[in-house]
Amino acid sequence: MKDLKDFIRDVPDFPKKGIIFKDITTLLREPAGLTEAVNQIYEIVKDKGITKVAGIESRGFILGGILAEKLHAGFIPIRKPGKLPSEVYAESYELEYGTDRIEMHVDAINPGDVVLLHDDLLATGGTAQAACKLIEKAGGTIAHISFIIDLTFLNGAEKLSGYEISSLIQYDGE
Amino acid sequence: MKDLKDFIRDVPDFPKKGIIFKDITTLLREPAGLTEAVNQIYEIVKDKGITKVAGIESRGFILGGILAEKLHAGFIPIRKPGKLPSEVYAESYELEYGTDRIEMHVDAINPGDVVLLHDDLLATGGTAQAACKLIEKAGGTIAHISFIIDLTFLNGAEKLSGYEISSLIQYDGE
Repeated sequence: MKDLKDFIRDVPDFPKKGIIFKDITTLLREPAGLTEAVNQIYEIVKDKGITKVAGIESRGFILGGILAEKLHAGFIPIRKPGKLPSEVYAESYELEYGTDRIEMHVDAINPGDVVLLHDDLLATGGTAQAACKLIEKAGGTIAHISFIIDLTFLNGAEKLSGYEISSLIQYDGE
Repeated sequence: MKDLKDFIRDVPDFPKKGIIFKDITTLLREPAGLTEAVNQIYEIVKDKGITKVAGIESRGFILGGILAEKLHAGFIPIRKPGKLPSEVYAESYELEYGTDRIEMHVDAINPGDVVLLHDDLLATGGTAQAACKLIEKAGGTIAHISFIIDLTFLNGAEKLSGYEISSLIQYDGE
């Protein structure tokens, strides 16, 4: 089996000078890469009784959707401000400069729901932490948080220390 | 079987006064709705030899990803400007006021690829038409374009008249 890391493309200077962007589109476009990534996460979470998969806009929608369907769960989009049409819960989180915000429909998750949270990338963990707050505000229990990539040198996992998390690929340096 | 239409929520005055928004999040969050929508599209496209599924940002990523995995195809994100890290093809299209633009990585699709294009909603058809141009510029053949919803009163299908298209739910009036 090809290593999942071999499917990831390094793009220098994106989104800004000096950053090496880890591009997952080269993994998604290959059936072998897509299937392998999905199956690895599925094996980790399949026996956790998951009823809803929440994916974070927008790359988290891709494997999030696939995992929901495979788990016979519902899919919940967690989105940037103003994108969801009905009533929402909102959470702000810190960026390097300033703050950002994510939203979830108030009726997306019900008390008793067992939730898998998915995003493609764990960086500082701020977005995932805010997403956890949204899910818990709605009464959901977070069974697991899955990422494709963990940029471990940014210590995002520390912010999510109360949760069970996994990542398929780790990078320990810039 | 519950009618797929029963899973769609009408949200009045979104994104602006006088528009009734057709909200698919109430379909996605129900396992029965999600599975039924996916299976209906899968039945239409499963024998077309599809090698890549292209989904349009960002709601098109959800079922687009699921269909790619089910078809053992690769998944291609078609995104808003500046989101894709590597070299892109870009296409502009007309909005009610002004223009918008979508992008696709130049190496996402290869000559010989047989492509399913997916988006959640067919409105005027401008975005899907631009997406077709991107796919064909890269040498791909469009086997089918699938939508969850067609707002038929906006005549989007006319703009896509050279292509095979399908939608699971139609609304013929505002």
